[in-house]
Amino acid sequence: MVEILSASKPGDWRSLDPENTLYVEFNTGRVVIELAPVFAPRHVANVKALAREHYYDGLAIVRVQDNYVVQLADPNAEKPELARRIQQAQKTLPAEFDRAFDPKVPFTRLPDGDVYAREVGFSYGFPVARDKRTGKMWLAHCYGMVGAGRDAPADSGGGTELYVVIGHAPRHLDRNVTLLGRVVQGMELLSALPRGSVAMGFYDKAEQRVPIKAIRVAADVLEAERSALEVMRADTAAFRALIESRRNRREDWFHFQAGRIELCNVPIPVRVIKGGVR
Amino acid sequence: MVEILSASKPGDWRSLDPENTLYVEFNTGRVVIELAPVFAPRHVANVKALAREHYYDGLAIVRVQDNYVVQLADPNAEKPELARRIQQAQKTLPAEFDRAFDPKVPFTRLPDGDVYAREVGFSYGFPVARDKRTGKMWLAHCYGMVGAGRDAPADSGGGTELYVVIGHAPRHLDRNVTLLGRVVQGMELLSALPRGSVAMGFYDKAEQRVPIKAIRVAADVLEAERSALEVMRADTAAFRALIESRRNRREDWFHFQAGRIELCNVPIPVRVIKGGVR
Repeated sequence: MVEILSASKPGDWRSLDPENTLYVEFNTGRVVIELAPVFAPRHVANVKALAREHYYDGLAIVRVQDNYVVQLADPNAEKPELARRIQQAQKTLPAEFDRAFDPKVPFTRLPDGDVYAREVGFSYGFPVARDKRTGKMWLAHCYGMVGAGRDAPADSGGGTELYVVIGHAPRHLDRNVTLLGRVVQGMELLSALPRGSVAMGFYDKAEQRVPIKAIRVAADVLEAERSALEVMRADTAAFRALIESRRNRREDWFHFQAGRIELCNVPIPVRVIKGGVR
Repeated sequence: MVEILSASKPGDWRSLDPENTLYVEFNTGRVVIELAPVFAPRHVANVKALAREHYYDGLAIVRVQDNYVVQLADPNAEKPELARRIQQAQKTLPAEFDRAFDPKVPFTRLPDGDVYAREVGFSYGFPVARDKRTGKMWLAHCYGMVGAGRDAPADSGGGTELYVVIGHAPRHLDRNVTLLGRVVQGMELLSALPRGSVAMGFYDKAEQRVPIKAIRVAADVLEAERSALEVMRADTAAFRALIESRRNRREDWFHFQAGRIELCNVPIPVRVIKGGVR
């Protein structure tokens, strides 16, 4: 993998689009999320609208469930007089659990099958499943994926609560929740948080919650303060070589070659652009 | 799942065998590991011998790699004059990456396939893969599985270094390292640790390491101080019902039924015996 990354060409990489990148600012640092407007256009637009009206600023991580998810929300969401008010954005949206299959969306298919879906692979920077029979494609719940929490009705989410997968891929959530992006930097600020001690990993004391200073759309942040990151393009020979290098590990340490790879075990490389500002 | 657990009968559960249970004692609490002598008899015997000669006491967690593993080791292992000495136990052992297929080992097979192996399921309290063609069966690298770290040669491990999976199942490690057990309680003491900042998640400063007070075989611990735990038996109708309830989630929250389940997404229930001591 190191060899493939060093041999990669500038064209194998793409900058994050500042208009589709979120910065979640904690006291401990920044989590960078790449948004997926191709898969969840309404949710992405709404999360950006919520960020731009400062809905999230001062909210908190309220839940950390081991081997499952971290969840950001308004701790007072259930208390009408205290709950954060929404201005222009939407509180709820129709579900975007999947979308119409579109052969124009680039798709780097994995050759080794999947327990949950007929086809899996990568579109842009995201793990994707699809099924031509049903004419659908959808984002898959791999480590680091970001979704919009919801209550029981399918259309009860909208981005006011966000969760991030911090454990083994909970693929049974696929097509049950709207995924809208992926953490590309700062996962350890979420995954290493103390687990909540009450049901579903909620923190039982207010002081355990991890405050969110702000969530910003990168385009609204001064260029000098943006995270200078590039993501490897999934539609390149370099990425296909990387997949192959992970299916058959040639490092001396490996004595047995799996010869196969499962969707959520494929890394999507992210690098810091040397020299800082893009 | 709650219904299945409440409907379960005493015979659906088994106590941990104190002779095959390890307690890893940290300042923050206890991690309980169930050992797997059926799959790694020599490694299990050696880890118990190491524990009984107090080899591990005072060692530390030296590595926490996000979405991968936590590793316990002697921080001075590479310094001959400082390295912890082994008395009766072995420093290295022949690999136990897999073992001969044995139809007498109970096996609750999952019906939905697997990317990495021909058959997967559960034997005793462990996720297992097997292949009748090659006549082999082996433990699978799911969340919480414990293995013996090694250097490049296959027979360079033996249990002096132990790792625990804290992320998405790294199944490419299957048949490349000897797995010897599973964490049944206390995962959050490992999974929520700060990630190491140098290559492979090693801590770069000695003070970041997490000291191990002791590792004990449960049989050597006073009964009153043992963790009173039971694990659901995998060879029961209750466990098969649990698998089915996870393949098709009947909770109102779910709008789409996966109808399938992947090996490492099946929970192996553990419960605290009411009233304390076994």
